[in-house]
Amino acid sequence: MSDKRAQTPSSEPELVAGNGLLHRRALLGQGIVYAGAVGTGLAASLTGAAAEPLREGPWSMHVGTIIPPYQTPSRYEAHVVRTQDNPDNEPRNSRARTPHHLLKGIITPNGLHFTICHGGVPDIDPAQHRLVIHGMVKQPLEFTVEALERYPMVSRIGFVECGGNSAPLFSNEPIQANVQALHGLASCSEWTGVLLSTLLDEAGVDPKAKWMIAEGADSPRLSRSVPVAKGLDDAMIALYQNGERIQPGQGYPMRLWLPGYEGNMNVKYVRRIKLTAEPAMSYYESRTYSQILPNGKAYRFYFLQEVKSFITTPSPGLVLKEPGYYEISGIAYSGTGRIKKVLVSADGGQSWGEAALQDPVLPKAFTRFRMPWRWSGGPAILQSRAWDESGTVQPTRAQFVALRGQTTKPPSVLDFPSQHFNSITSWAVDAKGGVKHVYA
Amino acid sequence: MSDKRAQTPSSEPELVAGNGLLHRRALLGQGIVYAGAVGTGLAASLTGAAAEPLREGPWSMHVGTIIPPYQTPSRYEAHVVRTQDNPDNEPRNSRARTPHHLLKGIITPNGLHFTICHGGVPDIDPAQHRLVIHGMVKQPLEFTVEALERYPMVSRIGFVECGGNSAPLFSNEPIQANVQALHGLASCSEWTGVLLSTLLDEAGVDPKAKWMIAEGADSPRLSRSVPVAKGLDDAMIALYQNGERIQPGQGYPMRLWLPGYEGNMNVKYVRRIKLTAEPAMSYYESRTYSQILPNGKAYRFYFLQEVKSFITTPSPGLVLKEPGYYEISGIAYSGTGRIKKVLVSADGGQSWGEAALQDPVLPKAFTRFRMPWRWSGGPAILQSRAWDESGTVQPTRAQFVALRGQTTKPPSVLDFPSQHFNSITSWAVDAKGGVKHVYA
Repeated sequence: MSDKRAQTPSSEPELVAGNGLLHRRALLGQGIVYAGAVGTGLAASLTGAAAEPLREGPWSMHVGTIIPPYQTPSRYEAHVVRTQDNPDNEPRNSRARTPHHLLKGIITPNGLHFTICHGGVPDIDPAQHRLVIHGMVKQPLEFTVEALERYPMVSRIGFVECGGNSAPLFSNEPIQANVQALHGLASCSEWTGVLLSTLLDEAGVDPKAKWMIAEGADSPRLSRSVPVAKGLDDAMIALYQNGERIQPGQGYPMRLWLPGYEGNMNVKYVRRIKLTAEPAMSYYESRTYSQILPNGKAYRFYFLQEVKSFITTPSPGLVLKEPGYYEISGIAYSGTGRIKKVLVSADGGQSWGEAALQDPVLPKAFTRFRMPWRWSGGPAILQSRAWDESGTVQPTRAQFVALRGQTTKPPSVLDFPSQHFNSITSWAVDAKGGVKHVYA
Repeated sequence: MSDKRAQTPSSEPELVAGNGLLHRRALLGQGIVYAGAVGTGLAASLTGAAAEPLREGPWSMHVGTIIPPYQTPSRYEAHVVRTQDNPDNEPRNSRARTPHHLLKGIITPNGLHFTICHGGVPDIDPAQHRLVIHGMVKQPLEFTVEALERYPMVSRIGFVECGGNSAPLFSNEPIQANVQALHGLASCSEWTGVLLSTLLDEAGVDPKAKWMIAEGADSPRLSRSVPVAKGLDDAMIALYQNGERIQPGQGYPMRLWLPGYEGNMNVKYVRRIKLTAEPAMSYYESRTYSQILPNGKAYRFYFLQEVKSFITTPSPGLVLKEPGYYEISGIAYSGTGRIKKVLVSADGGQSWGEAALQDPVLPKAFTRFRMPWRWSGGPAILQSRAWDESGTVQPTRAQFVALRGQTTKPPSVLDFPSQHFNSITSWAVDAKGGVKHVYA
């Protein structure tokens, strides 16, 4: 580093909390403050003579390849994929998790959106698929994809999260896994489709109907009961995801999207909405997704994915090579509405600084938060804690466990408790820059 | 259609402009109004007996396929691709255009983002790629991808548009082509990266530097001159697109992104930013992208992509099968800032109704607009016209041609004029429901 840079006058940036959390001004491109925050310097300084000629890579010396009709990532990004927990498609559920530690921003690209299939991925011909709305309605209706294409559409950026996302954190010992394994069953897209209210209004809902049973066309014919009130609120028959038609793992040619509600209820391949007075008490709602509490009672019809956040970088598997400046970055979201505030701690919750929220902050969508940090090279415990616009705050682990319990072995969806984990995640940084999952 | 639906009391929805443009209330899921607007009914009415049992598709009768690590679209969507104008990778430019007529929302999925390459798609090893900032700076700097990963990042949803997008509309006769061929060189993504101002501040820009020469690592080493003021404003070294690393056609491992500025300036594979007192007068800025005017003079350094809109559905190639309800939908954007208003006409500009703008309306980003329409079955000419928040309005064709000229043959980038077309596009619907490009 040159003397000139070392002599930067304001080389001590303002701290907002313990263990090196910096003021957001370090994010504003104010070079003097920033260079001070960096400390040792991230960029290599060049002398004028060293700058030219630039090194020529082999790719600069010959013509590249043909532009393909549908582009895919660079071969150097072949590791940026979803993890498969049933790669041989054995007769059980299959999950594919989003690699949050390798992504930035709020949009999950379609190729990397998490999915859970209960009978593999069906190959549905959209010309033959039908959506039927029937039961307690004035006029049962049947919709083709082509007919739905003519209805008024809406677009909305929002998340889907499996009720069982983060289930490993119910364990009484911190499971050693990365953020993809722990929190990879949540993703966020721009969904476009027809508001279900438009279709329900056309069918004419009997005022005595309180529930609607949504059923998919996949081989398990997965079905869930949804309150009619949600159907008349913001529920969508989604046809498009991030601009293009929904992909097969996401419910092609159409899915029910219930912003902020448990992923399993967002029925993929939806073929039926049946209006009823009572819920169906289907397999997934009466067994898997009825959350058993420490007192032996169960939360039944526990739909809302509550306020939550986690840090995606640094996170396990990523290594801090040297002391100095790092950006702590993560995702916050709430099924209730917009994220209001995210606090970050580098000392295991002893002190907190307020993170910058990236615009646009949208309701029931991922919000990217960022916090500048100067790592001293010593131990640190990184945490994030989110508040939503209703005032609800992400619970501490002690609060959460008292209410919801914990297990003495890694939970699965057949164990309990395993659903709707939304407490704080803690990443410990050791003196070698390694990151691991801890409880703090 | 049942008698009950035909007897809907308010079956005449409110009109906002001639030839069937309906009030936005028809978009609000108010079933009565909507059913009236639909007229003949889009959904098939079922008797209670006909609703069950549901027809079983073959995909409901057996287990589906394995969930892949990186998902791709359904085989039934194989036609949703970019068009290639140089599929054999001959030694000239290659363009791949976005299929706007088949997409909805504002996000372009990465696989379908338009691209233009001047020497094919390079295959760059990110571990070997460097970005150098030098020239009129206090301290020349060299950045690896790994170093840039540690800098403060920002995310922003915004468009990129080629200066030559819509060039066929300079022809004095309307070229018969679809919206992909006419307007497919514009797309919109969530970009994440490091603000260039952060890096320039660290290097220390000489106050006498007024330009920066951005150069790519592709074989043509494409270079463009950019005002330093833009570099210190909202320019970004983008590393991520829609969450994942930028794909090879978009500049992997990094590109310069200049929100709202001519696509060609958003240098892909960027390897150098050189600060200078004067512009480089490079090939692309002194030849291709210097817009020649009817009076023989040229617009040089004409960077801004001005306010523009076009209708994506209905559009050429799509056929209206029968009279009745349709949603007119399209895209508006401006390099200046947010879209303020979009008007739509169904009678070739004699009368106009205000379209609904889909939230979020973001600066220098696509904004999706929608207008409910009841097609009578007679001729119609569909147009859209956008205003941005600066008050600038998309010019009429007469205004545009008077200022910018037109040609007597289909323009290419080597003809003139061919750049920065932003006038109104007109689609004529004939009595058979066919849609073609016209001037009106």
